[in-house]
Amino acid sequence: MATAQASVSDVCLAARDASRVLATLDGATRNDALHAMAAALEDRAGEILEANHRDMEAAQAGGLGPALLDRLKVDEGRLLGIAADVRTVASLPDPVGETIEGKRLDNGLDVRRVRVPLGVVAVVYEARPNVTIDCSALCLKSGNAIVLRGSSTAAHSNAVLAQVAAAAVASTGVPEDAVSLVSGGDRDELRQLATQDGVVDLIIPRGGEGLKAALNEHATVPVMYAAAGNCHVYVDRTADLDDAVAITHNAKVHRPGVCNAAETLLVHSDVAADFLPRALAALRESGVEVRADGRARDCAGPLGDSLGDATDEDWATEYHALILAVKVVDSVNEAVTHVNRYGSGHSEAIVTGSMVSADAFTQGVDAACVYVNASTRFTDGGVFGMGAEIGNSTQKLHARGPIGVRELTSYKFVIQGCGQVRE
Amino acid sequence: MATAQASVSDVCLAARDASRVLATLDGATRNDALHAMAAALEDRAGEILEANHRDMEAAQAGGLGPALLDRLKVDEGRLLGIAADVRTVASLPDPVGETIEGKRLDNGLDVRRVRVPLGVVAVVYEARPNVTIDCSALCLKSGNAIVLRGSSTAAHSNAVLAQVAAAAVASTGVPEDAVSLVSGGDRDELRQLATQDGVVDLIIPRGGEGLKAALNEHATVPVMYAAAGNCHVYVDRTADLDDAVAITHNAKVHRPGVCNAAETLLVHSDVAADFLPRALAALRESGVEVRADGRARDCAGPLGDSLGDATDEDWATEYHALILAVKVVDSVNEAVTHVNRYGSGHSEAIVTGSMVSADAFTQGVDAACVYVNASTRFTDGGVFGMGAEIGNSTQKLHARGPIGVRELTSYKFVIQGCGQVRE
Repeated sequence: MATAQASVSDVCLAARDASRVLATLDGATRNDALHAMAAALEDRAGEILEANHRDMEAAQAGGLGPALLDRLKVDEGRLLGIAADVRTVASLPDPVGETIEGKRLDNGLDVRRVRVPLGVVAVVYEARPNVTIDCSALCLKSGNAIVLRGSSTAAHSNAVLAQVAAAAVASTGVPEDAVSLVSGGDRDELRQLATQDGVVDLIIPRGGEGLKAALNEHATVPVMYAAAGNCHVYVDRTADLDDAVAITHNAKVHRPGVCNAAETLLVHSDVAADFLPRALAALRESGVEVRADGRARDCAGPLGDSLGDATDEDWATEYHALILAVKVVDSVNEAVTHVNRYGSGHSEAIVTGSMVSADAFTQGVDAACVYVNASTRFTDGGVFGMGAEIGNSTQKLHARGPIGVRELTSYKFVIQGCGQVRE
Repeated sequence: MATAQASVSDVCLAARDASRVLATLDGATRNDALHAMAAALEDRAGEILEANHRDMEAAQAGGLGPALLDRLKVDEGRLLGIAADVRTVASLPDPVGETIEGKRLDNGLDVRRVRVPLGVVAVVYEARPNVTIDCSALCLKSGNAIVLRGSSTAAHSNAVLAQVAAAAVASTGVPEDAVSLVSGGDRDELRQLATQDGVVDLIIPRGGEGLKAALNEHATVPVMYAAAGNCHVYVDRTADLDDAVAITHNAKVHRPGVCNAAETLLVHSDVAADFLPRALAALRESGVEVRADGRARDCAGPLGDSLGDATDEDWATEYHALILAVKVVDSVNEAVTHVNRYGSGHSEAIVTGSMVSADAFTQGVDAACVYVNASTRFTDGGVFGMGAEIGNSTQKLHARGPIGVRELTSYKFVIQGCGQVRE
C-alpha cells in the first residue's frame, strides 16, 4: 500500500498501475483476496481495536458528540460484522467480464460489449471506519483499485484498517496498491484527489453537503453523488385507503432518518376527507408532527386544529425526523408537478387502483425509483437484489438508484475479426 | 422555442419543462416530430440557404480559411442530406421505455429497470450548422430536450435551423421548447450553461481542445467529451503478416484525419525483420512518413536509412496526417504497457494468431474499443449497428465508445406492488 507520506499524485498513480493488473485477474482470485481480507480483520482485531481506542480517546477529549462517537467506534462485534460483510460481497456474482451484448456484423466482425472495471475509484468519507473496509471490498469485487480518504478523526483506525486490507490482498497475489489511503488531514488533499484527470476514474463522496459542495466546486474527475432524499407518497382518488394508510405510515415512521423516508404526503381532493383523518390518527399515534396546507386541515376532521401550517419551505425540506408535510391536490398531474418541483429525484410512491394514474405517475415523475402501491422504504441495493450498495445515486448519468458492484463497472467493446479492413 | 433574448437560465428551465412532457410521449409521436422536421427543412430551404449565405459572406469578409468555410456552407444538396439523416434517425429502434432487466422479489414486488430519457441535453459546437439538426434529431429520438449553443460564425444559419426544427416539432404536438438555441456570442454564456445544476442533465462539447478545457474548468453539470484518438496497431509474433500489412495500412491510410486512425505501429521483435520491410513499402507507396525507433530502423531493410527518428513526443502525438511512428517491442505485455502509457483510450488493435496474446491484449489494454485482427477504423456507431452517433467517448462513466441514441438515455427503477411495506 502506498503510504500517507507519498503525494496524492503518487498514491493515485500506484493505484492506477494496480488497477491495470486487477483488470486482468479472474473473479476467483479477487474472491480469494476478499476472503483473506475478512480473515485478516479477525486475526488482527487487537491492532484494529487499539487504534480505534486511540481515535475514540482523542475524539472524546475533543468533545465529539455521542452520535458521532458512536459512528467512530469499532468494537469486536462490529469488527466481526464488517468481516462478515466482506464475505457477503465475495459471494456476489462477479460483475466483471460479462458480455452485455454482442452481434456479428455483415462483414464478419464480432462486436461484443464487455463489462470491465472502472479502474481507480476514490472514496471520500467522514468518521466511520467501517467505510474503509466496506468500500474496499466493493471496489475489489468489481476489479477496481480504491484510494480512500477518511476523516482525521478516524486517522488511526483507518490507517490500520487500510494496511490490514492491503497486506491481506497482497498475500493472495493481488497488487498491494489495490487498496490505498491518503492521510485525510489536509483540505488541499481533497482538491488534489479530485483533479487527478486520467488517473482517478471516479470519486464517490460519502458525507455531508459541505463535502459534496467542495467536490462540485473543484472536481475535474467524474463524481457520483450519494443522494439526499425528499420523497413523497401520493394517494390517488382510486387508492385502496387501507394500503394508503399503511404505506404512508411505513414510509414516514419506519426509519425517519434515512434518505428513502417520505417527507411529504400528497392526497387527491376526492378522498382527502375519508383518508386524512385515518392516516393522521395513525401518524399521531407514532408521534409524527404534521404540517398541512389549508385544504388538508379542512379535511383532517377533529385533528385539523392541531396541525401546523405547511409553507413552501416545508415542501422543499428533507426533515430526517418524525415530521410530515401534507398537501391536497386535484389530480395525478398536479401531484407529478409538485414532486418534480420539490423532490430530489430519489424515491416516489403513488397509491392507486387506476392503471392510467399509475402510468402517468411512473412516466411523469423524474426520479431514480418510482413505486406503485408500495412504500418508498424499499430503495436499497440489498433489497433490490444487487448485493451490497456503496450509496444511492440521484444522478442520471452512469448509475441511478442503488450503486452496487455492477454500477462500479464500465464496458469496453471487444471486436474480433479475421483480417477485416474498412473499405 | 425559447429565443436568444431569454436568459440562458430561462431557456434551460423551459427546456426542462419540455423534457418532462417528452418523457411521457410514445415513440410514434417522437417519430412524427422527426418526419415533420425533415419535411420542414425541405419546405423552408429558401430561408435556410439565405441565412447561410449571410453567414458565408460575413465569414469570407472576416477572412475565414477555406476548410472552415466549407464546414460552414449549407447548399441544397447538403440540406437534403441533413433531412435524409433525420429520417434515418426516425427509423432507428426506439431507445425509450425498454425494460433493461426485471425481477420479482420474495415479497412480491416487481422491480424493473426501465430506460428513460436523460432530460435536457446541451450541445456546444463550432461552425457546422448541420450539427444543429443532427443533434436535435438524436435528442428528440431519445426523448430529450436539446439546448444548442453554436458558434457566432454560424449564427444566422443556426437561428433559422433551430427555429425551423422547433416549429416543425411543435406542429406535431411535441413541445416547441424541445429544441432551443442560445445565441453563441458570449463566452459567459458557456459558463452559465455549464452550471445549470439540476436543470441541464448533460453537456456534450463538439469542438476543439479549447472548448473542452473551458468546460472542464467551469462545468458543474455532467460533461461527456468526444474524444481524441492516439490509436495503435500491435503486430504480434504469431501474426499473419499479410493481414498485418493490410490492417496497418488501412488503419493509417484509409482516412488519416479521423480519431480512429492509427498513429503508432508496434511490432514484436521476432517478426520485425520479416514484417517491417513489407509494411513500410506499402506505407511508402501511399505517401506515409515513418518515424522509427532504432530497433525498427535496423529491421526495416533497405528503407531503414530513409526513416525519421521517433522520440517520446511521437509516441504521444495524434498526427491526424500521413505520419506513422514505429517501435519494436519484445512481448505483448510490453505492447500493452506502451499503449496504456501513451494511448488515449480510443481504439487499439492486435494482429495475432495466439489466443493467449489476444486475451492479454483485450484484457490489458484500457480503451473503449479493442480489436483482434481488424483495423481500428471500424470504431463508429453506424458501423457497430447503433444507428447515428453524436460522438465517441473515451470516458469510462456512462458511455464509452460510440455515443448513439441509447447512450443518450438513463434509467429509472419502476417498482410495482400491492400494498407492501418494509418490516
